[in-house]
Amino acid sequence: MDSDFGIPRQLSDLQKLRSLYQPDLPPCLQGTTVRVEFGDAAEAADPTDAHTISRCFPLTYGQPLAHFLRATAKIPDAQIITEHPAIRVGIVFCGRQSPGGHNAVWGLHNALKIHNPNSKLLGFLGGSEGLFAQKTLEITDDILSSYKNQGGYDLLGRTKDQIKTTEQVNAALTACKDLKLDGLVIIGGVTSNTDAAQLAETFAEAKCPTKVVGVPVTLNGDLRNQFVETNVGFDTICKVNSQLISNMCTDALSAEKYYYFIRLMGRKHSHVALECTLQSHPNMVILGEEVAASKLTLFDLTKQICDAVQARAEQDKNHGVILLPEGLIENIPEVYALLKEIHSLLKQNVSADNISSQLSPWASALFEFLPPFIKRQLLLHPESDDSAQLSQIETEKLLAHLVETEINKRQESDMKAGTYKGKKFNAICHFFGYQARGSLPSKFDCDYAYVLGHICYHILAAGLNGYMATVTNLKNPVNKWKCGAAPITAMMTVERWSQNPSVASIGIPAIHPATVDLRGKAYELLRQNSSRFLLDDLYRNPGPLQFEGPGADAKALSLCVEDQDYMGRIKKLQEYLDKVRAIVKPGCSQDVLKAALSVMSSVTDVLTVMSSSGNHKSF
Amino acid sequence: MDSDFGIPRQLSDLQKLRSLYQPDLPPCLQGTTVRVEFGDAAEAADPTDAHTISRCFPLTYGQPLAHFLRATAKIPDAQIITEHPAIRVGIVFCGRQSPGGHNAVWGLHNALKIHNPNSKLLGFLGGSEGLFAQKTLEITDDILSSYKNQGGYDLLGRTKDQIKTTEQVNAALTACKDLKLDGLVIIGGVTSNTDAAQLAETFAEAKCPTKVVGVPVTLNGDLRNQFVETNVGFDTICKVNSQLISNMCTDALSAEKYYYFIRLMGRKHSHVALECTLQSHPNMVILGEEVAASKLTLFDLTKQICDAVQARAEQDKNHGVILLPEGLIENIPEVYALLKEIHSLLKQNVSADNISSQLSPWASALFEFLPPFIKRQLLLHPESDDSAQLSQIETEKLLAHLVETEINKRQESDMKAGTYKGKKFNAICHFFGYQARGSLPSKFDCDYAYVLGHICYHILAAGLNGYMATVTNLKNPVNKWKCGAAPITAMMTVERWSQNPSVASIGIPAIHPATVDLRGKAYELLRQNSSRFLLDDLYRNPGPLQFEGPGADAKALSLCVEDQDYMGRIKKLQEYLDKVRAIVKPGCSQDVLKAALSVMSSVTDVLTVMSSSGNHKSF
Repeated sequence: MDSDFGIPRQLSDLQKLRSLYQPDLPPCLQGTTVRVEFGDAAEAADPTDAHTISRCFPLTYGQPLAHFLRATAKIPDAQIITEHPAIRVGIVFCGRQSPGGHNAVWGLHNALKIHNPNSKLLGFLGGSEGLFAQKTLEITDDILSSYKNQGGYDLLGRTKDQIKTTEQVNAALTACKDLKLDGLVIIGGVTSNTDAAQLAETFAEAKCPTKVVGVPVTLNGDLRNQFVETNVGFDTICKVNSQLISNMCTDALSAEKYYYFIRLMGRKHSHVALECTLQSHPNMVILGEEVAASKLTLFDLTKQICDAVQARAEQDKNHGVILLPEGLIENIPEVYALLKEIHSLLKQNVSADNISSQLSPWASALFEFLPPFIKRQLLLHPESDDSAQLSQIETEKLLAHLVETEINKRQESDMKAGTYKGKKFNAICHFFGYQARGSLPSKFDCDYAYVLGHICYHILAAGLNGYMATVTNLKNPVNKWKCGAAPITAMMTVERWSQNPSVASIGIPAIHPATVDLRGKAYELLRQNSSRFLLDDLYRNPGPLQFEGPGADAKALSLCVEDQDYMGRIKKLQEYLDKVRAIVKPGCSQDVLKAALSVMSSVTDVLTVMSSSGNHKSF
Repeated sequence: MDSDFGIPRQLSDLQKLRSLYQPDLPPCLQGTTVRVEFGDAAEAADPTDAHTISRCFPLTYGQPLAHFLRATAKIPDAQIITEHPAIRVGIVFCGRQSPGGHNAVWGLHNALKIHNPNSKLLGFLGGSEGLFAQKTLEITDDILSSYKNQGGYDLLGRTKDQIKTTEQVNAALTACKDLKLDGLVIIGGVTSNTDAAQLAETFAEAKCPTKVVGVPVTLNGDLRNQFVETNVGFDTICKVNSQLISNMCTDALSAEKYYYFIRLMGRKHSHVALECTLQSHPNMVILGEEVAASKLTLFDLTKQICDAVQARAEQDKNHGVILLPEGLIENIPEVYALLKEIHSLLKQNVSADNISSQLSPWASALFEFLPPFIKRQLLLHPESDDSAQLSQIETEKLLAHLVETEINKRQESDMKAGTYKGKKFNAICHFFGYQARGSLPSKFDCDYAYVLGHICYHILAAGLNGYMATVTNLKNPVNKWKCGAAPITAMMTVERWSQNPSVASIGIPAIHPATVDLRGKAYELLRQNSSRFLLDDLYRNPGPLQFEGPGADAKALSLCVEDQDYMGRIKKLQEYLDKVRAIVKPGCSQDVLKAALSVMSSVTDVLTVMSSSGNHKSF
C-alpha cells in the first residue's frame, strides 16, 4: 500500500524519546568541508579471482580506496571538496529489513541538506519494485520525524530482493535517467551490494551519470571482509535474541526439567548464533561452520547432543539450552545432498508429491527416515539465492526429536554402563525469527547507520561509482571511527565449484556471505569457554535492549574481540611507505639507500611468501 | 540439582545495576511500628457460595480484612504491634516461575530482619517437593545479593505445582512442625493460593502454630478479584511480549507480504493477550472469552479472520498481525468437546493410538478433519488442573492453515462478487511462550513483589492465618499504595457444574482463574479501537523493557484503565458507617434520628435490590 509509506506513525513514549536522539558524527564528517584521500587501487583479497573480476567489471574494478579526513587533517595530497552543487539522489531498501535502515536515509538526507539545501533525496517506495516503477517519495524533515532511530523499513517499504535480470537492470537505468539522479544508494546485504556493483558497471558503460553506492545493512552480519567490520542491524538482532535466550536459560534453571532447543534466524552462516552465545552463555551452540568443517552427520550431531545431555544428567542437571543457527540444516552433509536433489527435481517441475519417488536410493532412504513435518519443509521451493527456505525448516524440532528417541533408548538399556540415568528428557522448541527484525535499533546501529548515510553523500560528492560506504575502528567510540569508501568489486570472490550443478552463478564474481572464521578470536573465545558453558550453567543475561544506563553503549562481543581496523592499517602502511620515500629521496646518502634496499628486500620476501601461502583470507 | 540453588550468579552489567536497585516502601510500611486495622468479616463475593465455603473452611472463613496503616495514622481502634519476637518463617515457590518472585523473598527477609535480627527465613529448595522433603536454605543478605530484582525462580527452584493430596498436606504439616516454623509463605497463582488456604485450615485444625500466607505471583494475571488488582509477573510478561509483537507489526508493515499468527502464553484466560493488544495495537486479537461468550466454532473463527484479511486486501493491505491466546483452543465449543472425550479416554488408559477409533461419531468427524500435527497435540495428556497442555497445542498453525485454505478457495472463485482479490496469502506462525518468563522483572514487578514480601511479615506479626498479602491502588505511585491482607477463602467460588464429568473438584471451593471481564473498561477500550486497529495499522511499539527514562515507570494499561481500589473503598465505607454511628449516638435529637432512619432505610433497600440482581461479580 504505497499510500501508507512515509505517513506519521503513532509513537509510544519510548519511541518518541528515541526519535529525538541525535547520533554523533565522527570528527572527519563534522563541518561542511571534508577531505578525501585516495589510497592505492583496491584489489580482491584472492589474487586468482582478480582477473575474473576485472574482466566482468572493466570500468569499476581497481579503483582506489577512499578515506574521508577532517578539514584540518595534514595530508598534502588529499582532495578538498568545496563545491557542493545541488544534487538529486535516490535511495532504496533492498532485501530483508534490518534495524537501523531508516537512519541511513536520515544520515544521507541530513548530509545532503547541510551541503546544499537545494539537493533532493527521493526514496523509492516498495523497494526495488518501486525503483523499477519509479514510485518515489521526496524525503523531508517532516516525513523523517517519526522514523528517526526507529526499526523496520516502513518509511519506504521493500519488496523483492534482487536487481539482477537484464530487464530489472534496464528498468533501474531508465528510472535513474528519467529521474535525473546523480546518485543511487542501495541499502542491503551481500546480494543487494553485489547488485549495486553490477548496476554501477552497467551505468558506467551506458554513460549514465548516476553513481551507485552500497550500504552494508543486514541483520545476518555476513557482509564482512577486510573493509567491512560489521553490518547495520546485527548488533540489535543479537541483543534482542540474547535477551530472549537468557530468559530461556533462567527459565530452564528455575524449572530444572526442560531442554530448550532454540533456532536463530541469520541465514546460511552462524554469526548471530555465535554472538548470542558469547552474550548469554547457553549450554551449547552448534555452528554450521563447525559442522561443515568436521562433516558431522545428523547421527553425529544427535550423538553429540545426547552425550552432552548425559554428561549433565550425571551432574544431576536435567535442563539446558541449546542454540541452533537456521543455516545449520544446509551444513549437514547428507541433508545438503538431499536438499540439492529435491531442489533440482523442483526445478524440473516435478511436483512435491512425486519427489520422494524420484530421489536417488541413498537420498530416498534419508528422506523416509525423517519425520513428516520435516519432509514437508524440505520440499519447499528454494529461495532466490538457491538456498533452502531456512526460516521454514524446523531443524530444532528435528534434532529434539532425534535426541529424545536416542535418550529414551539409552534410558531403556540402563543395565549397561555409560547409558543415560537422568530424568525423563523433555525438549521444548522455539524459533527466534521474525520477532527481532522490527526492533527499535540499538544505539550502536542508530549511530552506525546514520554515519554511513553521511558517508554516502561524500562518496557521491567525490564522484565515486560502485563504492560501499565503510566505517572502521567501530569497537571504539564514535569520535575514533574512521570513515571511508571501498570499491564493491574489491569485496568479491569467485566460486569455482559447487556441489549443485543447477547453480548458474558459478564463476560469476559476487560478494559472498562470510562464514564464521573458525580461526578468529570470537570463535576462540567460544571454544575456551564451551565446556564450562556446557556443564556449569554460567548463564548471563545482558537484559532487554537499553537506551540509557549500563548496556546502552555495549557493542557486539564478536566485534570487540576482533582486532580489525583494516582500513586504518592500510592507511598507516601508506604513511610508512611515504615516509620511506621521503627519507630515501634522490640525494640521500649511499648508506641510507643501501640500508633501505636491504631492509625492503627482506620485507618484500617475507610478504611474498606470506601472500602465496593462502593466509590471505584471514583478516 | 539442589546444590546449585542460591549460588552467586554471573551478572551482566545491566543485571548488576538492577541488583543494586532498592524498591521504595509505601508510607504505611516504613519504620518499625505498623498499625493494623481490622475491617468487617470478609465474605465470598457470591452469597450462595458462602455457605459451602464456610463448611469447608470452618476455622478460616469469615475472618476480617486487615489494613496496614502508618504509625501516625489516627485510627483509634487500630492495633499497634510493638512486640517483635524472633520468628522462623519458611517460603516456597509454587507453580510456574514469574518475573519478580525473587523480590517477594527479599522483601520478606528484609522485613523480618528489620523487626528482629534474630528472625530466620528458610527457603524451600525445589518448590513444594523441597517443602515435603524439608530441604531448606537459610536466606541471608549474601545469598540474596545476586538475585535481587532478577528474573526466574533459580534462587530456590520449583518443581510440582500442588500441595493437595492428603499425603502432601501431611508432609507439609510435618515439615512446618519439625522446622518449628511460625509462618509459611507460599508464592504462586490460583492453584497454589487455594492450596495455601487449605493448608491454613488443616494447620488450624491440627493446632499447628504455623500461619500460612499466600502471595499472588503469576504471569497469567488471572488471580484477580475484589481484593487483588494484578499479579506479580504479569506486567513484565506483557511488556516483553508487547515488544516482540510490535517488532512483528513493524516487520509486517515493512515487507507487506506476511500475516503473522502469534500465540501467547497465559493459560486458560486472555489477560496477557488483551494487555499486549492494548500496548501494541496489532490488527486483530481473538480473546477466548469472546469466543466462549459467542460460542464461535472453528468455522466461525476462520470466516472471521478471512473476512478481515479480505477487508484489508480491499485496501491493498496484504499483511497483518493476529494474536491468539494459548487458552483459545479450549474455548472453541466443538474442540472443547473433543478434548474432553480424549481426556476421558486417556484417563481410562486408552492409548493415544487407539483413541481416534473410540471417539463419538461427531468428535471423530472433527478429529479426522484436523491436520496431523494438531491431532498429535490434542492427544497429549491433560495438565494437573484438567486443562489441555495449552503450551503444546499450536492453535496458531491450525488457524493459519484453515484461513489459508479458505482464502485460496475465495481466490479461485473470484468470478463471484465479494471474494478475495488480494495477493497470495502468506502466514507465518510464532509462539511467544517460554522466552518471557525468565525476563528481568519490570520496575513495577520489582516494587510490587518487594512490598508484598514486607506485607507477609506484617500478616505473620499480626498472627493471621490463611491470608493473602494485598496491595491496592496500584495504578498510583508507590507512596499511594494501600497495603492489606484478605482471607483467601473470601476469594473463593464454587463451581456447580462442568461439562466434564471426570472433574472431581466440582463443588469444592477454590480460587478460580478470573476471565477477562467483557463488561470491563480494558475490554471496552479494545472494542472502541478494534476496527481501527484492524484496518488502519495503528501499530505502536512500547519498545524493549526499560529501567531508566520513559517507559521505565509505565504500568499495564489494563491495570490503569480500571477503577479498582476495592480495599480502599471498603475502608472508606467503614469510615462513613462509623461517622453515622458517632453522630447518631444515644442522646442525639429525635429529628436527627428520624432523618438517619429514613435515609438508611432507603440505602439498605437500594443495596438489597442491587445485591440480589446478580451484579455482585463485577468489581
